[in-house]
Amino acid sequence: MSKKLVHTPEGVRDIYGDEEARKLAVEHLLSEKFHAYGYRDIQTPSFEFFDVFSREIGTTPSKELYKFFDKEGNTLVLRPDFTPSIARCAAKYFMEEEVPIRFCYQGNTFTNTSNLQGKLKETTQMGVELIGDDSIYADAEMIALMIEALRHAGLKDFQISVGNLEYFKGICAQAGLDEETELTLRELISGKNYFGAEELLADRKVALPDREILLKTSDLFGSVDALKEARQTVNNERSLQAIERLEQVYQVLCSYGVEKYVSFDLTMLSKYNYYTGILFKAYTYGVGDAVLKGGRYNTLLGRFGKNAPAIGFMIAVDDLLLAMGRQNVTAAPRKEILHIYYQEETFEAKLKEAVSLREAGHCVVLTPYESPEKKGHEMQ
Amino acid sequence: MSKKLVHTPEGVRDIYGDEEARKLAVEHLLSEKFHAYGYRDIQTPSFEFFDVFSREIGTTPSKELYKFFDKEGNTLVLRPDFTPSIARCAAKYFMEEEVPIRFCYQGNTFTNTSNLQGKLKETTQMGVELIGDDSIYADAEMIALMIEALRHAGLKDFQISVGNLEYFKGICAQAGLDEETELTLRELISGKNYFGAEELLADRKVALPDREILLKTSDLFGSVDALKEARQTVNNERSLQAIERLEQVYQVLCSYGVEKYVSFDLTMLSKYNYYTGILFKAYTYGVGDAVLKGGRYNTLLGRFGKNAPAIGFMIAVDDLLLAMGRQNVTAAPRKEILHIYYQEETFEAKLKEAVSLREAGHCVVLTPYESPEKKGHEMQ
Repeated sequence: MSKKLVHTPEGVRDIYGDEEARKLAVEHLLSEKFHAYGYRDIQTPSFEFFDVFSREIGTTPSKELYKFFDKEGNTLVLRPDFTPSIARCAAKYFMEEEVPIRFCYQGNTFTNTSNLQGKLKETTQMGVELIGDDSIYADAEMIALMIEALRHAGLKDFQISVGNLEYFKGICAQAGLDEETELTLRELISGKNYFGAEELLADRKVALPDREILLKTSDLFGSVDALKEARQTVNNERSLQAIERLEQVYQVLCSYGVEKYVSFDLTMLSKYNYYTGILFKAYTYGVGDAVLKGGRYNTLLGRFGKNAPAIGFMIAVDDLLLAMGRQNVTAAPRKEILHIYYQEETFEAKLKEAVSLREAGHCVVLTPYESPEKKGHEMQ
Repeated sequence: MSKKLVHTPEGVRDIYGDEEARKLAVEHLLSEKFHAYGYRDIQTPSFEFFDVFSREIGTTPSKELYKFFDKEGNTLVLRPDFTPSIARCAAKYFMEEEVPIRFCYQGNTFTNTSNLQGKLKETTQMGVELIGDDSIYADAEMIALMIEALRHAGLKDFQISVGNLEYFKGICAQAGLDEETELTLRELISGKNYFGAEELLADRKVALPDREILLKTSDLFGSVDALKEARQTVNNERSLQAIERLEQVYQVLCSYGVEKYVSFDLTMLSKYNYYTGILFKAYTYGVGDAVLKGGRYNTLLGRFGKNAPAIGFMIAVDDLLLAMGRQNVTAAPRKEILHIYYQEETFEAKLKEAVSLREAGHCVVLTPYESPEKKGHEMQ
């Protein structure tokens, strides 16, 4: 036997025992909330044609996609996320549909990162997509649902950051930045690299007032008051509308009664190409990255031939579980397994006992392996 | 937009709407029974090192494996089934464990078949493995559990065929067949190719009495009486013990009260390399192939360094759903989605209504899209 034989490749893992029970319990609870809001499950293939996840559409650089070939010579890709696949489905099966469609999903995603990054290469994602509704109520439903879902799963301490790409885009348009500068600046600001941003703007000879407004953006985060400050900072219509939208969404979130979980962050400028307006992330302690990400992507479905606005979020289930583990908030107590011991002569009677306990909803192992040390033995 | 963009590769598909709801309901029901018997969930990676699924261990020819590379140059394979992965886990995490371990799993498997075969390339499998128990009670538990699980999922008309590889192997040993002849004969007999088998045995100059016994094997299937006939056909100890084991297992199945689902088939000689004793398949109408397959594999764990007997089965969930669809036995009625319509001025009141309905366990879409035609609209 080669030693390698019992090992899994770097970046993927086995999950069993209590950890797996907790994972399934959390997935079930998240799913319950998605269903309560009328979202319906959809399952897309684990791999698709390369084009579905290509650079213009996808979230993952091509070199981080797992690529392989089928017998017909097509390049296939293990999905790095779900949103492009679900956009494809909506375009394929609901092309003429005008009433909003609500999808939820659960499954694994794959990114071929370098081992040096120390990231998991196969991760479980769950999420929802609301297609065909561009209203503030759709934005608010997304945020309310993510808060309720995380709470229902057992998470207590978390914060939702909400941004709006349109705010930044309005300022860039006013300052006359070209697309490349805008993208570079976006990365510098979301990376909180203030000096880099300043240098870039000086280098591109951006006019001083615009430069100040752009740099000011990196300060715009916090409670709903940050929106007031943001409003005072700009004077272009597009940015003002972006703020107004966030204020309106906030009002609806107050109706939902979830406003205490929400803060605003206008420096949140996703590098995903497909986002167009409102953006959100959920943070909790115990993991470095956001456990939930999402936003509005009103142009993505157009790439598949259906013109419809859309908004969605995805939960990084493995990260969520890691955080919950470190916070000692367990999703659901594990169902205890009862052990009934039999000997050949008592099998029939013990089987009857097991059957009625199972019928009453218990988990029962019927086993001959009783010994003083082993009694009540449980897998870890 | 390229036309290809909305399509999935051949052999994989999107599942949504009622079909997906039925699939998840069936998976949930199967899982409930696995848990009732004390099986605990395990999740292994979607891909592993090639060696885990290599020819000596696996069930799938190498050319039907999806292979690709990681950044370190390792050859990775999308799992074609679960059993080798779970055997690997048992050896890795439970090397010293002497008490039986019960695992259940659910996930997708991948085979890179040619399009001409018209088979699905990504399919969902669910199953169980019982490791460390070589008793007739373990054999019977497997069969009782598969019957209860299929019934619990909603299937009514089905039959479990049970065989025992040892019966055939005993005759082959007595006749002094070499391994290659044995394997060829196994394929001919399980393919019910009687003339091919006769020709092969004549060609290899197998002695006449042995030849007749071997050919007789292809008739040995039916009710428990087939076992009596099988017993009279042979006179070697190994085959006789194989029959005795099946008779003992049948007695235990009578205690479980599930014997009416069971028939015997000594021509069932799986081509999977890892099976060693009892074998089973479940058949129902509406699909061509068995919806469930399994058996005992007492040497597989040894390949990963742990010497332990094991037995398991897997359910081909997609085939099961197809059969259930054709038989009009639906797993569970779909949970209805209620639609509550709001206008801007009524939003707050309608939200309250939605919240209390959701709290009462209903699935509620809150939507502004009311129109006479669209009222009560549901996704198909």
